Amino acid sequence: MGGVIVTNPPKAEAKDVEALAAFGVATVSEAMGRTGLLGPSIRPVQQGVRVAGTAVTVLGWPGDNLMIHAAVEQCGEGDILVVTTTSPCTDGLFGELFATALQKRGVRGVVLNTGIRDTQELRDMGFAAWSRAVSSQGTVKATGGSVNVPIAIDGQVVRPGDVIVADDDGVVVVPREKARGTAEKSEAREAKEAATRAAFLEGQLGLDRYGLRDTLQRLGVEYRSYEEYTGAGS
Amino acid sequence: MGGVIVTNPPKAEAKDVEALAAFGVATVSEAMGRTGLLGPSIRPVQQGVRVAGTAVTVLGWPGDNLMIHAAVEQCGEGDILVVTTTSPCTDGLFGELFATALQKRGVRGVVLNTGIRDTQELRDMGFAAWSRAVSSQGTVKATGGSVNVPIAIDGQVVRPGDVIVADDDGVVVVPREKARGTAEKSEAREAKEAATRAAFLEGQLGLDRYGLRDTLQRLGVEYRSYEEYTGAGS
Amino acid sequence: MGGVIVTNPPKAEAKDVEALAAFGVATVSEAMGRTGLLGPSIRPVQQGVRVAGTAVTVLGWPGDNLMIHAAVEQCGEGDILVVTTTSPCTDGLFGELFATALQKRGVRGVVLNTGIRDTQELRDMGFAAWSRAVSSQGTVKATGGSVNVPIAIDGQVVRPGDVIVADDDGVVVVPREKARGTAEKSEAREAKEAATRAAFLEGQLGLDRYGLRDTLQRLGVEYRSYEEYTGAGS
Amino acid sequence: MGGVIVTNPPKAEAKDVEALAAFGVATVSEAMGRTGLLGPSIRPVQQGVRVAGTAVTVLGWPGDNLMIHAAVEQCGEGDILVVTTTSPCTDGLFGELFATALQKRGVRGVVLNTGIRDTQELRDMGFAAWSRAVSSQGTVKATGGSVNVPIAIDGQVVRPGDVIVADDDGVVVVPREKARGTAEKSEAREAKEAATRAAFLEGQLGLDRYGLRDTLQRLGVEYRSYEEYTGAGS
Amino acid sequence: MGGVIVTNPPKAEAKDVEALAAFGVATVSEAMGRTGLLGPSIRPVQQGVRVAGTAVTVLGWPGDNLMIHAAVEQCGEGDILVVTTTSPCTDGLFGELFATALQKRGVRGVVLNTGIRDTQELRDMGFAAWSRAVSSQGTVKATGGSVNVPIAIDGQVVRPGDVIVADDDGVVVVPREKARGTAEKSEAREAKEAATRAAFLEGQLGLDRYGLRDTLQRLGVEYRSYEEYTGAGS
Amino acid sequence: MGGVIVTNPPKAEAKDVEALAAFGVATVSEAMGRTGLLGPSIRPVQQGVRVAGTAVTVLGWPGDNLMIHAAVEQCGEGDILVVTTTSPCTDGLFGELFATALQKRGVRGVVLNTGIRDTQELRDMGFAAWSRAVSSQGTVKATGGSVNVPIAIDGQVVRPGDVIVADDDGVVVVPREKARGTAEKSEAREAKEAATRAAFLEGQLGLDRYGLRDTLQRLGVEYRSYEEYTGAGS
Repeated sequence: MGGVIVTNPPKAEAKDVEALAAFGVATVSEAMGRTGLLGPSIRPVQQGVRVAGTAVTVLGWPGDNLMIHAAVEQCGEGDILVVTTTSPCTDGLFGELFATALQKRGVRGVVLNTGIRDTQELRDMGFAAWSRAVSSQGTVKATGGSVNVPIAIDGQVVRPGDVIVADDDGVVVVPREKARGTAEKSEAREAKEAATRAAFLEGQLGLDRYGLRDTLQRLGVEYRSYEEYTGAGS
Repeated sequence: MGGVIVTNPPKAEAKDVEALAAFGVATVSEAMGRTGLLGPSIRPVQQGVRVAGTAVTVLGWPGDNLMIHAAVEQCGEGDILVVTTTSPCTDGLFGELFATALQKRGVRGVVLNTGIRDTQELRDMGFAAWSRAVSSQGTVKATGGSVNVPIAIDGQVVRPGDVIVADDDGVVVVPREKARGTAEKSEAREAKEAATRAAFLEGQLGLDRYGLRDTLQRLGVEYRSYEEYTGAGS
Repeated sequence: MGGVIVTNPPKAEAKDVEALAAFGVATVSEAMGRTGLLGPSIRPVQQGVRVAGTAVTVLGWPGDNLMIHAAVEQCGEGDILVVTTTSPCTDGLFGELFATALQKRGVRGVVLNTGIRDTQELRDMGFAAWSRAVSSQGTVKATGGSVNVPIAIDGQVVRPGDVIVADDDGVVVVPREKARGTAEKSEAREAKEAATRAAFLEGQLGLDRYGLRDTLQRLGVEYRSYEEYTGAGS
Repeated sequence: MGGVIVTNPPKAEAKDVEALAAFGVATVSEAMGRTGLLGPSIRPVQQGVRVAGTAVTVLGWPGDNLMIHAAVEQCGEGDILVVTTTSPCTDGLFGELFATALQKRGVRGVVLNTGIRDTQELRDMGFAAWSRAVSSQGTVKATGGSVNVPIAIDGQVVRPGDVIVADDDGVVVVPREKARGTAEKSEAREAKEAATRAAFLEGQLGLDRYGLRDTLQRLGVEYRSYEEYTGAGS
Repeated sequence: MGGVIVTNPPKAEAKDVEALAAFGVATVSEAMGRTGLLGPSIRPVQQGVRVAGTAVTVLGWPGDNLMIHAAVEQCGEGDILVVTTTSPCTDGLFGELFATALQKRGVRGVVLNTGIRDTQELRDMGFAAWSRAVSSQGTVKATGGSVNVPIAIDGQVVRPGDVIVADDDGVVVVPREKARGTAEKSEAREAKEAATRAAFLEGQLGLDRYGLRDTLQRLGVEYRSYEEYTGAGS
Repeated sequence: MGGVIVTNPPKAEAKDVEALAAFGVATVSEAMGRTGLLGPSIRPVQQGVRVAGTAVTVLGWPGDNLMIHAAVEQCGEGDILVVTTTSPCTDGLFGELFATALQKRGVRGVVLNTGIRDTQELRDMGFAAWSRAVSSQGTVKATGGSVNVPIAIDGQVVRPGDVIVADDDGVVVVPREKARGTAEKSEAREAKEAATRAAFLEGQLGLDRYGLRDTLQRLGVEYRSYEEYTGAGS
């Protein structure tokens, strides 16, 4: 079935990646119109860590980490490895030895649509990781796949060179062409949120700040006292 | 489709809430005859925190947090916000800005039958939260729903003013009429458990303490040596 | 329906258990040819703890912890309690009182193919636990079952006296006859991994270390520049 | 822990049940403002059958069908048995013998938030059934529970005497006080749908019939030719 | 990692298999004390078919059907192929070509703890199949495994030569040593059920037939009229 | 947040679609190197139907079918509607009225990564449908989205104009540029399978036909008699 290892794909510019690294996953996703998120099943193995980097993508076979070996050679400073398989897999395709090799190459973390193992060692090394499962189940190196081709995880397409931002809330992918614009919009959103936060701290309500009382009225939502509500039957 | 925002529902008395706050979720549930628990899919975003408060309930639309905005205005000192949607939803309906507004109003925490975001910020703020998922997925404010009506989560009905107790083990709801009685039974149970703990520390077996040897015999459970067991085939 | 409590089953030797305790779950499983793992749904309630011990097995009824009471009496120094039910169950069959009784008897931990409760108390006590769920749901003591019979969890058979090793990555079972051999192979594997780690730190690639370039070629995986790849159409 | 068997609860009137039986589950739910549905995990064991009847409710213990035996005595002509358990359960709590007893009493079907067995026999008997799982796992009769108390399944509360309508699309509960009104609204909705169907058959678009072109415009959804779209980058 | 293909394992006697074939899965499981069932996730691809045969077992790698090829040679008249993988897999490991080869050898069906494909063709051929998923995902033939070793599925151990009975309700495994005894007990149970059915048809209640009124009383379950129940609050 | 409705995207040629319609989903996926499959959670609501057509894609909001209305206008002869949402959704976004409108326009079916309703009516109409769930839960028309943009479902990207083939085994997407080539390879594969089928009917083994005995040997899989195997310990 072949497969292909694509070398030297274009990547988002480092300064744009750095700019995005300043923002949380929720902010970045909002800045892209509420898009780009991998789903809630992909969770961090550590707490309190945020990373941003450029994607090196892997499409492998379930129970097989051959293509991760091939991908290591394609990884460099500032990258984040993103791995999926042709069908669902929770096996521990990635562990401390891969992390050692990647950390030496300047790779900032890994996102696995599969399982991971050696989680305590990864935390001790400070190698950031997100995965769908934690599993010690080992793998073979027997079936081909691809590196640096577009892959799809949880409804999102990740292309090599796209920006990955990941934190305690999950993982978001920013298409490389949108990196700069998204960083700018993220900054604008943070400013707006700071103003909202200040207003909320002074007691303003979202109902008033966002003009939602009109929305409620237009939708026919009514205010009723408890007595009115229970008196009217259930 | 309308929807209703019910104002000033009756609430459990503050002293009963405080009394319940002294007990863990398991104790409170046992004191109610092993009822009242939301299921194991609703998990805390922090560790080592226990809260008790009176429920303000929200029934919203999936992917929409309009009714949470409406609910903030109904929340006050000692409340806990409890949110569900008309069909399953893991989106991040709640985050740090809502928590800021609620914390200022004296709200003690949030229980979401949906996703949550800004988990690191929530931990930093000390705003307690339990949710079905962690997700940065943002929401719209486009569809009506209800506040302070009875809602059902995982087989439990939560009414406004009922007591919510939540800790590392999960979330339990105590009907407001049963708050005082449940606090009393919880205390009795804790005393009984303390005695059991002391007995177990001295080596007594549950088999003897609870009279279970008779139960085993009545049920036909037999003791066999390993040799008897394996010699008998299987 | 009866059921049986088997007394004094043979156990792996203590020195072999101690030898296995030196290795992580992933290493032990690899040493057994990538077998023996309970699946990724069984997770620790604490972080950073590894235990090894001999299994005392329980097969109970869902929502019922009678047979755990029966099993406590069969537990001793160096054991690990392993509990499953005849059909799936997430109830909190085990909590702090059981842990108190077991800790006094020298038991090293518990593995539950069900729910657990009192998780904060268990962490405070230092009693190690792995479970499929966290749930405060209490149980009855009404239906018989068995202790120290072979049980199956997630495709693995656990017999009484087999060695359980558990850490942040999950749980592995080593048949008691293979304990010594597995410890030896684990040690050999660790040595091999140390050499690989050193090589990776010096920049060697897995592709070269494991001879995988030939594998890729044999499988028909091709290297393409980004321009070749995209020029050729997707 | 006791439990209670409530006798002679009020029921929706037979003529209102018959009126509701004329409509599909989707129509009835829409007529109630898109409420009342049990979730999509509860599926029919047969195809092409629709029933409506008054609920007799059971809250039992997982793995235990004692309370179904108690409920049979409370069931009569035109009822539908609705069963849930205190925690999730897929065991086969119900089979052909129960169906035989209920069919003789004029019961119209069963809705199980658990497993069911003897599915072929049930189809042969023409006894309608909906369940969360199909499982032959047998049960005990050892733990108490309740009959004809309000129960909650998938976010819906079912009270004794409420109307259950079930078909290939699932199950909906209509509070007994709303039975007549819902039947009337269902009829109105069917008439409206018939008009829409006729319009669609003549080629009218929902966009025009429901005035959605304005909605799209207000929401900022834009029409673009494929060339514009792809030329503008993704 | 090796693996082993075991030849000529002992099998249950054909007459005992035939005897068991007369009973449904629920009856056989009950006759074994409510044991032996594979869980409710393993479903038939056809309706209305019951088979019984002797197990030929396969333990393969996810996404790989090499060992099924090896198993075909070990299969003969009256066998049922039972397949699992070392970690969870929904891929279509089995389809019409395998069924063709097996049907020619007199094999009666297949039970897959994985996915299956060509379901329409299998129904057309009359080759009975049960599986965890339906998936067209194809497989490789690259990794070793074992044939005719004990395997565990959903908490049940299946050994080569054990009896498999499968119908619309699911799959049960009968240890070969227990085949005859289980057939006898199944017959006794059917007789008992026939008597119960007759009694139920005459209107007897399970409460009376099984003496459950005493059980309810002992457990503290109380009868209350609706007025008493609602008047007492809740 | 806008969204876009793309008009007149390029489509696979009708003759290539017809050619693909001759093959089952499994064959088509194999012909593409075992790619293109939507996962096993997307199931048909009917049995024994195969369709092929060109995709019109919809990306909507959970609980909202506004964009399906917009998509109807973009659908024509030979199309298949393919719908997903920005986050997971099991609501019944599609039913008989939509099917009526689409059937009139010559649309061949629908694939929903959400729920569907009116399943009996759809079967009666002969409108083919595949979905992730069956649910009567109704929807609003309040939030924007896109039509005829690339969407990702279960790891597969579906672009407007790509070919969808669906049958009892599931759904496969063929990129429009690969439609002709895939049809040719599918035909070749069917010829090869016919030869294999004939060989299997004559008793040839896959082990021999595919040269797998060497593979087993290379992998270290050994043949052992039952006596050797059990004598050697487990």
